[in-house]
Amino acid sequence: MPGILSHGSQDFPLVRRFEIKRASDGLLTRVVDTVATEEPLALRLKYWFKEAQTTITLALTMRTPGNDLEFAAGYLLTEGVLQNREQLVELYSIGAQPANEIVAELSRDVDVDAWRLARSSFVGASCGLCGKRSLDALMTHFPAAVESTLTVAPQLIEALPELLFRGQEGFAQTGGLHAAALISADGRLKSVFEDIGRHNALDKLIGNEFLAGNTPLREHILFLSSRSSFELIQKAAMAGAPVLATVGGPSSLAIDAARALGLTLIGFVRQGRFNVYSGDWRINSK
Amino acid sequence: MPGILSHGSQDFPLVRRFEIKRASDGLLTRVVDTVATEEPLALRLKYWFKEAQTTITLALTMRTPGNDLEFAAGYLLTEGVLQNREQLVELYSIGAQPANEIVAELSRDVDVDAWRLARSSFVGASCGLCGKRSLDALMTHFPAAVESTLTVAPQLIEALPELLFRGQEGFAQTGGLHAAALISADGRLKSVFEDIGRHNALDKLIGNEFLAGNTPLREHILFLSSRSSFELIQKAAMAGAPVLATVGGPSSLAIDAARALGLTLIGFVRQGRFNVYSGDWRINSK
Repeated sequence: MPGILSHGSQDFPLVRRFEIKRASDGLLTRVVDTVATEEPLALRLKYWFKEAQTTITLALTMRTPGNDLEFAAGYLLTEGVLQNREQLVELYSIGAQPANEIVAELSRDVDVDAWRLARSSFVGASCGLCGKRSLDALMTHFPAAVESTLTVAPQLIEALPELLFRGQEGFAQTGGLHAAALISADGRLKSVFEDIGRHNALDKLIGNEFLAGNTPLREHILFLSSRSSFELIQKAAMAGAPVLATVGGPSSLAIDAARALGLTLIGFVRQGRFNVYSGDWRINSK
Repeated sequence: MPGILSHGSQDFPLVRRFEIKRASDGLLTRVVDTVATEEPLALRLKYWFKEAQTTITLALTMRTPGNDLEFAAGYLLTEGVLQNREQLVELYSIGAQPANEIVAELSRDVDVDAWRLARSSFVGASCGLCGKRSLDALMTHFPAAVESTLTVAPQLIEALPELLFRGQEGFAQTGGLHAAALISADGRLKSVFEDIGRHNALDKLIGNEFLAGNTPLREHILFLSSRSSFELIQKAAMAGAPVLATVGGPSSLAIDAARALGLTLIGFVRQGRFNVYSGDWRINSK
């Protein structure tokens, strides 16, 4: 499948340097500071509609450049546009580096208009958004219960912050980048992706595995430097990952969604302790 | 102007309690944990198009319930749909509490379709997104250079974390809520709004002032518990605030945008120190 990953912008730095002023004891001095890079990215879809190819802009998002093709592939999988790798005919960036425009060309069997209709009717519906029903309405549009028999030792979870710290390059420089790490069942760090957006970091990680034909991630643990939210649970479930652990805490809807999907949700992984918010049967406790 | 703020859901709690498992030394025990509330909110616009009223769903966003009307008003101002308070004819929530649906009824002079067209052409444009041009393209759609003669003493900035800590209710309970605080020129805390989303917290704060007729916020300082990004700079500038300070650091595009708009951008306000990324002439240094 030619074209895939042939135009990545991995060379573009995660960080930029700025001359700024630092204040200490009421005094301003000139220093150089290192900052996480933020740039807009346009994701365009080229798809078939009634025997003709058409192009739309699916999303404009702010992200840290680098691994943009992986980001695009992950986004298309976790948002439900694509079901499998074969539906992605071509994936490339256009423009000068850093190329802030990605084109995804889809196979004829992808019904983008049906997907857009389902999404807009979800957004446009006046019911289903009140109280208890909101989760049902949200879940209807992202049906992806997690299938996995993976179990994990508490010691593996406790070791995650140290693993992530070793793999995360940009955070130490800026304090402003989120990281998503993929951990194997035996506790090895397989990949780390960084981005100013926690959703983007996870999409890059998932897209990398999706493009390599490794999804669903049934035998893996996802570890994020951030908090967890409904959307992150959705993305983990769409990638088939059974365990999502985070340095920060979850939102209420993240817990509700994880419980409904049978996903193991772990938070506040710090200093040898952690909280299990959902799916504790996957933790091999003593 | 009847209807404004008459159906707020301020009574809905910022947090929810869950029974979970806590792991320590490899042992799981049952505890009750307090978590930031996340719920979807649909924002609907009722506006005039050729002598007829029409309704669209402008946005579906995840947020922490509470101050939803302020959030909606702030969002409409900072996204450029509204220019002044008089264009908001009615603002109300519908459905059971927490009401996850807000309707904003606009006056006849608001051209929502022109706004949508400008926005979609921005998203759809194939140029303007590469490297240096991206900022120009973004700025074209949010033209709001900051006009203010405000200057601020370094001591006032250094005192912000303590001020915010006293006003922030939900974070201490959950570790999962962002806060946006409004500070007067003489260093008094005027309001604090919390939300799982940092953009939402700022929109709630700005919307509260917009509804009270207090925008532009030319004589005020905005202080956020989060990092800063391009979008937060945009929102501060649309509200006319001359100074945005944050506990975390900025992104590269946040700095670029703040410099282009003449906004004073401050980051890493911690332990009596801070960094000034833009507009240091507003800091009254010794």
